[in-house]
Amino acid sequence: MNGLMMDVSLTITSIMQHAQQVHGDQEIVSVTRDNPRHRYTYREAFKRTRQLANAMAAWKLPRGSRIATLAWNDYRHFETYYATACSGYVCHTINPRLFPEQIVYIINHADDQVVFVDPDFMPLIEAVAGQCPNVREWVVLTTEDHMPDTKLSNVTCYERLVHGHSDQFTWPDLDEREACALCYTSGTTGNPKGVLYSHRSTMLHAYATLMPDAMGLSARDAVLPIVPMFHVNAWGTPYACPMVGAKLVYPGNKMGDGETLSALINEEGVTMSAGVPTVWLGLLAYLKASGNTVESLKRIIVGGAACPLSVMEDFDRYGVETRVGWGMTEMSPLGSVNESTAARDEYGEEVFAKQRLKAGRPIFGVEMKIVDDEGKELPWDGEAFGSLKVRGPWICSNYYEIEGASDAHSEEGWFETGDVATIDAQGYMAITDRTKDVIKSGGEWISSIDVENVATDHPKVAEAAVIGRYHPKWSERPLLVVVRAPDGQDLSSEEMLAWFDGKIAKWWTPDAVEFVDELPHGATGKIHKVGLRDQFKDYAFEA
Amino acid sequence: MNGLMMDVSLTITSIMQHAQQVHGDQEIVSVTRDNPRHRYTYREAFKRTRQLANAMAAWKLPRGSRIATLAWNDYRHFETYYATACSGYVCHTINPRLFPEQIVYIINHADDQVVFVDPDFMPLIEAVAGQCPNVREWVVLTTEDHMPDTKLSNVTCYERLVHGHSDQFTWPDLDEREACALCYTSGTTGNPKGVLYSHRSTMLHAYATLMPDAMGLSARDAVLPIVPMFHVNAWGTPYACPMVGAKLVYPGNKMGDGETLSALINEEGVTMSAGVPTVWLGLLAYLKASGNTVESLKRIIVGGAACPLSVMEDFDRYGVETRVGWGMTEMSPLGSVNESTAARDEYGEEVFAKQRLKAGRPIFGVEMKIVDDEGKELPWDGEAFGSLKVRGPWICSNYYEIEGASDAHSEEGWFETGDVATIDAQGYMAITDRTKDVIKSGGEWISSIDVENVATDHPKVAEAAVIGRYHPKWSERPLLVVVRAPDGQDLSSEEMLAWFDGKIAKWWTPDAVEFVDELPHGATGKIHKVGLRDQFKDYAFEA
Repeated sequence: MNGLMMDVSLTITSIMQHAQQVHGDQEIVSVTRDNPRHRYTYREAFKRTRQLANAMAAWKLPRGSRIATLAWNDYRHFETYYATACSGYVCHTINPRLFPEQIVYIINHADDQVVFVDPDFMPLIEAVAGQCPNVREWVVLTTEDHMPDTKLSNVTCYERLVHGHSDQFTWPDLDEREACALCYTSGTTGNPKGVLYSHRSTMLHAYATLMPDAMGLSARDAVLPIVPMFHVNAWGTPYACPMVGAKLVYPGNKMGDGETLSALINEEGVTMSAGVPTVWLGLLAYLKASGNTVESLKRIIVGGAACPLSVMEDFDRYGVETRVGWGMTEMSPLGSVNESTAARDEYGEEVFAKQRLKAGRPIFGVEMKIVDDEGKELPWDGEAFGSLKVRGPWICSNYYEIEGASDAHSEEGWFETGDVATIDAQGYMAITDRTKDVIKSGGEWISSIDVENVATDHPKVAEAAVIGRYHPKWSERPLLVVVRAPDGQDLSSEEMLAWFDGKIAKWWTPDAVEFVDELPHGATGKIHKVGLRDQFKDYAFEA
Repeated sequence: MNGLMMDVSLTITSIMQHAQQVHGDQEIVSVTRDNPRHRYTYREAFKRTRQLANAMAAWKLPRGSRIATLAWNDYRHFETYYATACSGYVCHTINPRLFPEQIVYIINHADDQVVFVDPDFMPLIEAVAGQCPNVREWVVLTTEDHMPDTKLSNVTCYERLVHGHSDQFTWPDLDEREACALCYTSGTTGNPKGVLYSHRSTMLHAYATLMPDAMGLSARDAVLPIVPMFHVNAWGTPYACPMVGAKLVYPGNKMGDGETLSALINEEGVTMSAGVPTVWLGLLAYLKASGNTVESLKRIIVGGAACPLSVMEDFDRYGVETRVGWGMTEMSPLGSVNESTAARDEYGEEVFAKQRLKAGRPIFGVEMKIVDDEGKELPWDGEAFGSLKVRGPWICSNYYEIEGASDAHSEEGWFETGDVATIDAQGYMAITDRTKDVIKSGGEWISSIDVENVATDHPKVAEAAVIGRYHPKWSERPLLVVVRAPDGQDLSSEEMLAWFDGKIAKWWTPDAVEFVDELPHGATGKIHKVGLRDQFKDYAFEA
């Protein structure tokens, strides 16, 4: 027997209606190339969104067509998000940091019809446009006065496109399962894979991120998303903020500029921000050098990579709460948030320092489990570690137009994150490794991340990586590959290996050390383990 | 084109899994007749819930069967909520304050198979059981030692029912549209009407109530729901609290006892509570008389009836933020929350005093509009008032097994609340009247509530009500019916009417005053306008 409740679809369209009626006066502030501090209100934003929707309607694209963006965080990108998704198209956000050949691949794989481009990326577009025959138009996100010179013929100015269109538009009725956005994720091997979000998944994710122990946003917040709108929808903030009437402060192409970030925080009263560790290092360096403070800032969410404890402790001194978040493109992205700071008094300082580094507790809606090699569930005791699997209404079921089923979903109904993790009795999850990097010695797993962290703590080590190599008795044993620090050129294998005594389990200690001048790195700066294993492919231990 | 996201149903079942894994150590504290301070954890609660589910399974009821509760807020009621809904049954909560003939009506209308009863209500059950032939079993929520004597044969002890059952149970897969709960709403005329909630509506409502500007709950909160679980699911708190790991503190049958409430708040560290104005008056009276304080309490949500400003100002002095909430049984119930306290510095004191009394802003997910007699939408200017209509995924589409369509849904897709309201430019809604009580003079509406509020401000007035009576020229004009205060027996019509000068629009001032010894009241203490209009049915104004 079904309930008797209204059959109202969860669609992004409802955000516009709510925000303009209830929070119409709230501001969106943006840094753009043509205006260092553009400001307007949600009411004006959605008025222009309707003008853009009218402009798009003239293209007569079939429902579900992909419209791409290659843009920074600013108000025009925000308008494009809503005009595409709420018109029934799919907003395909492209990461400009991908290699040009990957950008060509995903534009063609997604069959993008139109691409909205920041003027900063015109050189990139000019290089790839010839290989993207299905793109009918490149729309440059700027005013006519600021249009770059180009040899491309099918280029339009965004402001000219929008200009003169009616601000009345009847949005189509959409089913909540319809696609609204597409984002490709790039591994170290193979082509990028597309994650296709639905209106439903996006709305449920947004509700969940708003919970006090997740992002905890309200109408009194001013949010500075330093996480890019070109990757996993800036962690859902373009949806969550207008839902609650939070002010949006967009840094444009100044995401890596500590001085601009500090100015935006102080001048716009930013209370909450989100970004990867690198941007915080940049902001902290600027604050220390300039003597500036960030009085209004209450909380930051750090994700995308492990957050160094020193970053958290620096922010402690500025009165800012640091919450680690963990997620994936395949997870919309938020899976867990570490809100332990709110209870720091309950921990001893030493315990707290460890606890706050974890990836946090699953937010309601995300189920997690850790399993061993046989798929058997492991206990949540903070010690046992296994492959992390997740399940929930904002987690991808498959990749866009991929051949065959994805092996990421080998167990029915669960997504294999590719991470190895522990979960403690309070539900705090900690990543210990990537599945493909884990070392299996005598049937037991060794966490390469834990070993690497101890190695890089050595003052004479600049960088270190651990890989598993063949061993006749144990099947695999860890090999440590080290780049010596400039003033640590006398570091020996013996000194290095002695360093592990008492710091990790004896049998985790690497069997040997190899010194190299540099380690191979991937496009995002991470150590390229595949390349490293290839480099040492003939290396084998003796019995 | 649909998104490629997991098809995970939104079901209450998922709350149990999350709460016991992530917040297993968090407590539920209850006042019961057999234990003045029972305490256990979410882990234990859901273990017992599985035992109860096994006991229920032995009844072999078809999916969707109604199982009723007639109970206070405590842990056994909480277990019954989850065991019924997650087994695929419908938890039908019965309000013990209804008249016995209404209780008989709804038990039979709902076709309840089993009723879980607090021992307090045994006399009531003994009076009605003979008229409820389909109830196979009455389960008394207590231990064997505390079982009341009864002449009824089909009575079981809850603890005996649960005892010995396995704590392993495989919950059925449920579709999110399936019904989970049923609550009857009683008007002043006709039989009570059943609102049938679905798993989906309940989960979406819970996510929305968790937003910082709504209830704003976190794992650091301890929540005292003084709103009853027997009516509209205690505003969703039995779901919202375990979703985020908030501690639950249940007052049992002590909801009206200021001393117990004060003790629970102080001894259990309650941070947030919710209830109707009456319970706050009781708590405040106790605090003033005893000199006690409520240091841990940060915030209360007040709903169910208009909250007097004096209650808010008293709580200001105790350091407690008061938020008015507005909703209906048909709305799960939450529609709006007044979070203006968070911005009180932005208002002048006088403006703030008015603003905080309003019903608040719609929470995201609830659409509102106000319309005039012709169904034309009225502006959100804080002045125009009209019939309030609402729409959203947790608002009822129809009543349970009601003959014909409900006239509450006369406009497709919108629910007619029966309230008359204004909405200001910031989205703050204020109820000015009930649709059926509004007075229409010369085609224009007069708010009876506004007129009554001015009248009752007069020191010589104990109680006042305004009704519309026939007028040959204006069609209707207001008649004021007044009960004089004990020390105001000399109040004359002239003095009463002069009081309105400058306080409301001239044409809203009643045409005449009638003095009576008492006004008719309904079961919930509200003035019974239908009875009053009946009493003055022959009253007519002259041209």
